[in-house]
Amino acid sequence: MSRNTKPNAVIGQSGGPTAVINQSLVGVIESIQGCKSIGRLLGARHGVRGIIEENFIDLKGLKKSVLEAVAATPAAALGSSRDKPDEAYCEKIFDVFAKYDVRYFFYIGGNDSADTARIVNEMADAAGYELRVFHIPKTIDNDLCVTDHCPGYGSAGRFVASAFMGDDRDSASLPGIKINVVMGRHAGWLTAAAALGRQDKTFGPHLVYVPEIPFSTKKFIDDVRGVFSRLGRCQIAVSEGIADETGMPVAVALAGKLGHRIERDSHGNVQLSGSGVLGDFLSDYIKSELKQKYKTLRVRADTFGYLQRSFAGYASPVDQAEARQCGRKAVEFAMVDDIDGSVAITRAATKSYKAGFVKANLKDVARATKHLPRKFINRAGNGVTQGFVDYAMPLTGGLPVIGKLD
Amino acid sequence: MSRNTKPNAVIGQSGGPTAVINQSLVGVIESIQGCKSIGRLLGARHGVRGIIEENFIDLKGLKKSVLEAVAATPAAALGSSRDKPDEAYCEKIFDVFAKYDVRYFFYIGGNDSADTARIVNEMADAAGYELRVFHIPKTIDNDLCVTDHCPGYGSAGRFVASAFMGDDRDSASLPGIKINVVMGRHAGWLTAAAALGRQDKTFGPHLVYVPEIPFSTKKFIDDVRGVFSRLGRCQIAVSEGIADETGMPVAVALAGKLGHRIERDSHGNVQLSGSGVLGDFLSDYIKSELKQKYKTLRVRADTFGYLQRSFAGYASPVDQAEARQCGRKAVEFAMVDDIDGSVAITRAATKSYKAGFVKANLKDVARATKHLPRKFINRAGNGVTQGFVDYAMPLTGGLPVIGKLD
Repeated sequence: MSRNTKPNAVIGQSGGPTAVINQSLVGVIESIQGCKSIGRLLGARHGVRGIIEENFIDLKGLKKSVLEAVAATPAAALGSSRDKPDEAYCEKIFDVFAKYDVRYFFYIGGNDSADTARIVNEMADAAGYELRVFHIPKTIDNDLCVTDHCPGYGSAGRFVASAFMGDDRDSASLPGIKINVVMGRHAGWLTAAAALGRQDKTFGPHLVYVPEIPFSTKKFIDDVRGVFSRLGRCQIAVSEGIADETGMPVAVALAGKLGHRIERDSHGNVQLSGSGVLGDFLSDYIKSELKQKYKTLRVRADTFGYLQRSFAGYASPVDQAEARQCGRKAVEFAMVDDIDGSVAITRAATKSYKAGFVKANLKDVARATKHLPRKFINRAGNGVTQGFVDYAMPLTGGLPVIGKLD
Repeated sequence: MSRNTKPNAVIGQSGGPTAVINQSLVGVIESIQGCKSIGRLLGARHGVRGIIEENFIDLKGLKKSVLEAVAATPAAALGSSRDKPDEAYCEKIFDVFAKYDVRYFFYIGGNDSADTARIVNEMADAAGYELRVFHIPKTIDNDLCVTDHCPGYGSAGRFVASAFMGDDRDSASLPGIKINVVMGRHAGWLTAAAALGRQDKTFGPHLVYVPEIPFSTKKFIDDVRGVFSRLGRCQIAVSEGIADETGMPVAVALAGKLGHRIERDSHGNVQLSGSGVLGDFLSDYIKSELKQKYKTLRVRADTFGYLQRSFAGYASPVDQAEARQCGRKAVEFAMVDDIDGSVAITRAATKSYKAGFVKANLKDVARATKHLPRKFINRAGNGVTQGFVDYAMPLTGGLPVIGKLD
């Protein structure tokens, strides 16, 4: 590998993709295309793995038409990775950077990615190697610290809200109890977005359960019974990560009770997404508790799964623009001085929504999780507040029109 | 109930709703609003049940703004019903029609609804009671006879195609095997729509399984192994209704083998939608067969569920316009003479897509199912042909742009 006269940059994408993670990628590419002081922009295939395997593609010469098509496409165009680098792994990353004379590292990802960026940065510092590291936030979970909200959340929230709006009308057409399981292992931001399209209390979701509130099956069945006896139907939003008082995920607790099998991934985490297990458990539970009184009760459950982060053609325009801007800002910040950090979005204290972009410290973003605050959850712990709606609504773009005959 | 001087009309919606069933409803309402020879237009709440319970709402006086909002809203604004009327039930319907001086009956639904319309019509004939009965087709399954395609299919196909397009990029980001289970108990039209967004053979879905082709688990695993060894990943579209050589649904067959529980509805049908059971079965099966060779194999399954028919804000514009026109045409046909029938869509033999609307006979639509023809399925029985793409593409409206870096 011959060295360029100019220093080079590397960009990678990591973790579960979003509908707008490629907007941030393109924001970085287009900014570096206009930047004469940087030689090559190397795209790492499949995140950090692409770095240690030296699996790169050159991105600086790409045409605008290609970039715009990529920007509009969900998921990680460079490929993503679930690798969680330890110190030795980060050492390898740093070695490759030195070999390729990489002086700028842009990493689009969640809190684990911010941590990887932090470790690599500290290694460069210790070695006296000038490296500018920027983390660009992305996650549909909206659970990163410092930033007001995360690129990717607005589009996933738009999908979830629209899904609940249509499904609510479907459930009003053929009344019964409908459960929809929404992504979010630890934080309830995305599940809360289910409520954004509600026009009044007759519309679903009538009940919303998030991981921040310990889940009680007794309270759940009382809540469902209450709504059903009042409205003759009930639409329910449930986070895949709901857990009981002890922190035990409900899926696991119910599995033992009902004799179902539960799968664990390589980290020992219960596989929650991409399986109907929690929805089926809850719907069986409702049937067993309520069928005596309501003999023909219709109970259905859907698990929205990967569509929430990947559905094509329905991203939030606000989210798309902000994700692009985060990529551009990372390059702008990296050019100023020998600084490192994470791009954070701020919200102006104005009546109409207005976002700003600032530099946050890597250590404040790395590893930490931002939960849905108590003020965004109703007193009964089974719904959201107007405060949450005011917070989240500007991020999703306009929601569909819903009409009723009465 | 006092009789009007002018005869009245009844409209109802039936069966599983679609994203555009309200377009047809509004097509009927707006046409009858302009029709001086009809007195009241009674909307039956929850289909035929609303008729026998005399649960009606007056629709003739509704404002245009309300109608347009309702038209854009998924699911049945009048409410739907799963009741399948027998002769005695139809007799009750006819009695209510006589009581309310109903001379026009518009019924939006699938082949069961066409059959209900046919029976009521024959009763009126036998009694010498002038009744004009029109069935207006709807179904995301696209399995009604005579008509070129069914209102509701284009929007569901648009959702499924877009879902596969984004999910395919997600699956390319984090490679592995991804199964998506699509609605369609007996016909593969909607599952086939999964392939509409494919740009070349590297894009998913790489395999498509429809109920028209007997499903063999051995062939399935050979197909998956072949694609995975060639591309390092595999995205699979599976109809919920796939069945083996004997007609036994795969979900049921595998259930016995794996010791899972299968639920049946009140008609004795296995509950296929709204549960992850088939996807989980197939993904377990792939893991058990391939994990020895591919130790870290990532296998995921999603079941798209009710979103396919109800997702708000993403209907096909072509489908919306045609569904509206079917409602208008039903009124137009009913006004001409003492005729009865079903509205059917024709397709002009021109290069660019053009739809026409004709009257079909109720008996030709009632009860029958139109399967995906063999020419629309590839020779291997695991994909679709260009002929299918040419047929279905004009119905979905434009699909999202997908960009790649290489």
